[in-house]
This record gives sequence, C-alpha cells and structure tokens, in this order.
Amino acid sequence: MRMYDLIEKKKMGQELSTEEIYHIIDGYTDGSIPDYQISALLMAIYFKGMNVRERYDLTMAMRDSGEILDLSSINGVKIDKHSTGGVGDKVTLVLGPIIASIGVPVAKMSGRGLGHTGGTIDKLEAFPGFNVELSDDDFIHQVNDIKIAVTGQSKNLAPADKKLYALRDVTATVDETSLITGSIMSKKLAAGTDAIVLDVTVGDGAFMKTKDKALELAQSMVDIGKRAGKKIAAILTNMDEPLGYAIGNNLEVIEAINALRGNGPKDLMEVVYSLGAQMIAFSGIETDKAKARLLMEKAIEDGSAFNKFVEFIEYQGGDASFAKDINKFKPAKYIIPVKANEAGYVHAIKAEAVGLASMTLGGGRETFDDVIDMSVGIILNKKVGDAISLDEPICFIHANSMEKAKVAEEMIRKAVSIKAEKCDEMTLIIDTVE
Amino acid sequence: MRMYDLIEKKKMGQELSTEEIYHIIDGYTDGSIPDYQISALLMAIYFKGMNVRERYDLTMAMRDSGEILDLSSINGVKIDKHSTGGVGDKVTLVLGPIIASIGVPVAKMSGRGLGHTGGTIDKLEAFPGFNVELSDDDFIHQVNDIKIAVTGQSKNLAPADKKLYALRDVTATVDETSLITGSIMSKKLAAGTDAIVLDVTVGDGAFMKTKDKALELAQSMVDIGKRAGKKIAAILTNMDEPLGYAIGNNLEVIEAINALRGNGPKDLMEVVYSLGAQMIAFSGIETDKAKARLLMEKAIEDGSAFNKFVEFIEYQGGDASFAKDINKFKPAKYIIPVKANEAGYVHAIKAEAVGLASMTLGGGRETFDDVIDMSVGIILNKKVGDAISLDEPICFIHANSMEKAKVAEEMIRKAVSIKAEKCDEMTLIIDTVE
Repeated sequence: MRMYDLIEKKKMGQELSTEEIYHIIDGYTDGSIPDYQISALLMAIYFKGMNVRERYDLTMAMRDSGEILDLSSINGVKIDKHSTGGVGDKVTLVLGPIIASIGVPVAKMSGRGLGHTGGTIDKLEAFPGFNVELSDDDFIHQVNDIKIAVTGQSKNLAPADKKLYALRDVTATVDETSLITGSIMSKKLAAGTDAIVLDVTVGDGAFMKTKDKALELAQSMVDIGKRAGKKIAAILTNMDEPLGYAIGNNLEVIEAINALRGNGPKDLMEVVYSLGAQMIAFSGIETDKAKARLLMEKAIEDGSAFNKFVEFIEYQGGDASFAKDINKFKPAKYIIPVKANEAGYVHAIKAEAVGLASMTLGGGRETFDDVIDMSVGIILNKKVGDAISLDEPICFIHANSMEKAKVAEEMIRKAVSIKAEKCDEMTLIIDTVE
Repeated sequence: MRMYDLIEKKKMGQELSTEEIYHIIDGYTDGSIPDYQISALLMAIYFKGMNVRERYDLTMAMRDSGEILDLSSINGVKIDKHSTGGVGDKVTLVLGPIIASIGVPVAKMSGRGLGHTGGTIDKLEAFPGFNVELSDDDFIHQVNDIKIAVTGQSKNLAPADKKLYALRDVTATVDETSLITGSIMSKKLAAGTDAIVLDVTVGDGAFMKTKDKALELAQSMVDIGKRAGKKIAAILTNMDEPLGYAIGNNLEVIEAINALRGNGPKDLMEVVYSLGAQMIAFSGIETDKAKARLLMEKAIEDGSAFNKFVEFIEYQGGDASFAKDINKFKPAKYIIPVKANEAGYVHAIKAEAVGLASMTLGGGRETFDDVIDMSVGIILNKKVGDAISLDEPICFIHANSMEKAKVAEEMIRKAVSIKAEKCDEMTLIIDTVE
C-alpha cells in the first residue's frame, strides 16, 4: 500500500477502505508516513470529505492508536459530557455535582487546553490543595464512593489525534467535519464511558459559526458514536453571546457556586438542565426528561447539589471553605465598569471578542507554557435583549493591569451593539440530535 | 506573513499576491517553510488553481531561486524547444541539425531524466567519446561557430522546482496546470533564450491525456512566456501511438539518422517540420511557415542537415562514423517478432504501454541510479491505420533477455488493437497556441 496512491484516491473523491485508513493512522503514529504526505491528504479530505464509514474507521483507528480506559469496575451507566467550546462555559462545574447528587456516576477526564480561560481542571485548582492527578484506582474508587471525580488527562489517549491536530493546526486543515469528528470522538471512545452527551456550541464564540455547520458536526459525531455502540446525543446550544455573566477563571467558579446554590443565570441553567436531562435519561434513573429536570431543580433547592460539590472538592483535597465563602477568592486589583455611550437595547455581545478580551487580561493560555491569571476576567452587567441606559455599565472588567484593561475595554466596546429598537433574548437550545 | 494564512487563503479560493508567492518560494527554497505546509498548499492549489498573474509570479519566483543563463554573447535569436514528453520522441535529434544548418542557433541544455528511454543527452552518448559536459565558454563558442551545441544540465537552474517537484511527486500534486506551468516555464526562462517553442503532447503516451487538458496547459505556458517578454508558441501533437517506428535508445538514434538522410517516418517528420517552421519563423530567417518548411525539406535533400549532424557530433568529440554506418551500433542479442493473431486494420498501439515495455527491456530509468541498456527497444512494423495479415509482425522486440522479452510481448499485445473495419491514420498536429 503506497501513501501516494491513497492521497490520489482521496483527491479524486474516492472512498478509502478500512485497511487503508488504519494504514494511514498507524503509519503516521509510528512515524513511517511523513508529515508532508499526511498534510496533503488532510487538504484533500478538506475538499472531498469522508463518508460515515470512513469517519468511523478514522475515529476507531485514532482511538486504537493509544490506551483505552477500562471503567467497568465503576457501578452504573458511565456518561461523558463534551463541549465543542465556548466563552463563559462553566457547565461541567455545575452539571457534574447536580447529576452526581441524583446518582449518575460522573467519571470525568479533563484537559487543561488553550483558550480564553483555563479548562475545568484549571478552574478546580482555584480551590487550594485540589488534586488533579488521581491514580486509576483512586479515580474509580472515588466515583464508586461519591459518584463524582475529575482528573487530568495523564493517560496516552488517542496519541494519533495529538499528532494529527498539531499538523492540522499549522496547515489550515482544522475546519473539516470528518477530521473534527475523528478528533473528538476518538478521545471520547478511548475514555471508555457507556454514553456520551455532546454540547455542540453554535455562533460567534463557537468553533461552528452557523447552525448548518454545527448540525452537520453533531449528526456526524452522533452517527459515529452509535456505530461504536454508545448511547449518544448532541445538543446544539447558542454561543453568540457568552454563557452566563462571568468570563474568567475564579469569576466562573464563583458563578458556578452561585448556580449550585440556586442563583444561576437563566441561560447557563437552561444549558445545564438540557444536558443533564439527557444524561439522567441515559443513566436510566429517569428517562422522562421533564421529570429528570424536576429532579435537578430539587437537587439545587434542597442543597444536595451544592453539598455534593463541597464533598467532591474535599474528597480531592481541596479547601471547600472557598465554596462556602466566595469572598475568600482573591479578587483582581481593578474593577472597571465599561459604560454605555447610548441608551437602548443590547442587540449583541459578541462572544469571541469578549473571550479574547479575557485572554488579553491574562485569563487564558496561548501556549502550554503560559501561566493563567485566575483573578482576571469580565462580569457582564447586561445580556442580549436587556434595556440599557446611558452611562449604565455594560460589564465590569476585572484586571491586574490598567493597560491591559484599556485594551480589553476597546475590544469589548467593538463587540457590543446597542440599538434603539427592542430585541429578543437569545434562544439557548437550538436543536437536538439523537 | 504566516504560511498558515497563505494556505487558508488559497484553500478559500483567494488570490495570492506577488509578495506572498515570493515568500512561499523563497522560504521553501531556503528551508524556512517546511514540506508539510507546502504540500498542504499544493493540494489547495490543485483544487482552487491559480490565475495567470499568480502563475506568472510563481514561475518568476521559481526562476529567480537559482542561476539565470546569460546567452547574450551568442549571435542571433536563441530559441529553446521543449516537449512535455512522449514515447519514441527523437524530435530534438532530427530538428536541431536541420534548423542549425539553416542558420538558427540551437543552444540546448538537456537533462537525463527518468522514463521509458533516456533523454537526448543519453542518446547522444551512443556516439563513443561524445562530451556532454561543456563549459559555458565552450558551449557559447560552439553555438557561434557551428550553430548547435547540446550540454547536460550542470547549472543550478530553478532549484525551487527541483525541491517542489520532488514533493509533488510523493504527494499526488503533479497534475495541476499552474504547478506544471511554473515547473516547465521557470526552467525555460532560466535557460535564457529569446524564444520558446513547446511541443505539448496529447494522448495515451502523454502526460496530458485529453486535448482539453493539453490546450489548457499550452495556453497557460504561452500566457506566462509572453508575460515574461518571450516569443513563444505551443504545438499540440498526438501521442496516442509512439512517434515514428523506433522506441529505445540506439534504435531511436538510428531512426533519427535515417530521418536526417531523407528516410524519416511520416509522423515524425510532420512534428519536426511543424516545430521547425515555428522556430525558423521566430528566428526571423523565414517568417512564412510554408517557405520555412521548404527550407527544411531542402536541408534534408541536399545533405546539409545530415552534414550538420556529423559536424555537431564530431565537434563534441563523438565518433561520427556511427552516423555514417549505422551497423556500427551494437545490436541487442535477440530480435523477436510479435505476430498478429488476426488479420484486419490496426486501430491502436497504445503509446504508454509500449513505453513501459521498452522500460521493462531495460531501455529506461526508474531512478537516477539505473543504468540504461542502449541496445534494447521496440521497432514497430505497423502504425495505426495500417492493414495487417494474420501472423504478420506488429513489431520487433530488441532484447538482451528472453524473459524480459516475454514480459514486453505481453504488454505490447495488450496495447495493440486490430479490428476488421478500416481505420484512419492519426492526425499528428492537433492544434497550435501562439
């Protein structure tokens, strides 16, 4: 089998066989196929795509390139949740404790990642002492004991994806549905859960800017998950404006704590409950989604969700007193309001620009060597659809440098649109693929 | 300027600027842009193409990556001739001496190349003592003295093309018009002549299998040549069956000698005269092509073309007695007829398969380390359109191994089609672009 012929085949729009796809992924992982042939193939795939069978084989070959977790000793239906990324996304922090308190086992591997803020793991480190490197045994034991554990990704899961992603990232071949599907689903399948719920974000702050593109990706991932014998569903959620009010590490942790205590922003809770209802349904605990939602609301109201969060933080060695008294989180030096130059209604708060503003403040990572500033970020004072008066704050910038705050302010001003006419608030749940 | 952005730009079908194209070619030549980004770009160019301005910039950037020959000290209009390749192509061996004898300066750089037979340089080495490595001074002095010199490509002409071609060759990105144009024209422009006549072959044994594809390439190369201020024309010639009767190194040299002595195959002479008339017109010696053709026919008839050939071989140290007595060429051990299994008319002698048969016999190079067997090859006994009787030879295989001859015979049988109904001979000159 010559790699040349496989590139030519895909270039001509033909289907690659299972054997051919494994040959490509195995050869790339072991270094026998060079980068320059793979990047030509990736570009041919960008233009010619892959059918469902090819995507499945691509995903499985990538999954099989490394370890596959064995979670069989965890009791109950293991469910993973994955988001394609957004701005102000603290869903896992709220959702995990809620469904764990209801009895759904949450065995979550989480990466640090690059982006506007840190990943879930970074945010959990806001609690002093929190241990993000659990052994396999401790991880499984903890889930069986208290239904929730979150650990960093120490395992060699889907190494083919790491290598392929690094190549796609420098050859402009990231934005293609089969390649995204393979990348996400290979890791999800290697993580060894029984069911997967996908939060596919759509809009300005999401990877997929349009509903059509997001639906295509969602359908593709659901197809592959089903073919691999998993329970799987994807929920398309709106990411035109940031989710909730807080963007930034500590600020998002605080918003998550407030949400678990019953003071969650409406849009955040809508996403949490939608994903949660699907996860509870998959677990078999309550297959009626309306009833599942009532269970979650009750877990918030009676304090069991918040108590589960405290138990979880403490179990992993974290100082949960921060959860009970959010004033313990170290604030940023400056809190600067960004005031409206005109009165009217908020028509847009472009999520991507707000995310980049948070990054400018020091809240995110551009490279894996960057150190995250936990205290900086942005607290929105208005959401799309809200009325705003002249000089009323659109948001507050939390900064440790006035210079950076100025840059962030400019970015945010460009991201916000205020008009005289009224505007509806955003629809959060756009579609569901199952 | 980030290479990533340039790949993305081409991927989206946008035009690359002059500066961007030079950045790419310079960066690839000096090694600062890696193979894997260039191969992704090449595949994007395969799908999105380049417009005439981009092709021109690509060609010039590639030309400028190395030396540019200065032929200004050669008297008269210097004209280069280039063929996109075929089977049985001994045109240069015949054409060069004819037009040199008329007064057109022929300053030809020629590579060895890979393929069904050797290149022009390899074939000239059939004359013992022939020197293929002339110094610049000797080369120019010889052209001024006897109007013809042929030397190997020792100069560092268009090194970007060498590197790019090697990459295209392993990433299935050879067959794209802008890239072929850049590859051929960068070398032609670096070779420093005033005019260029292109023989763009079409059909089974050619790189371009269809007239449309060949026309597209011809037009593209002519556009670029004109933009670079050169006189240029392209003639599309038929390569469905081999050109002439002989395929193989010594066999082609012998056919060329016979042609110079007035016994050339009709199809070969048609191509020689068509290209030659264009070259003579560009030289200014005779702009009326019908009259130029008469000049060439006269040069054959009165022996001046053959005498020029002898003078040329001797000037470069070769033993021209071989030209005067073709029996001096060492024959192959075996000459085996391939006999027709049926009577009728020859409808096809597929050139590519015949070329591969010649290669199987040892007459060509697969890699630059291969040694060419000068004596082997194939002499056709019939051409398309000819009547053939049962058991009459289609061709004769000249081989030094019976085993290889058997394999070659099988290949040739599959390449030949004999049918009961009559068939026209092939039209040689398909089109002209100027």
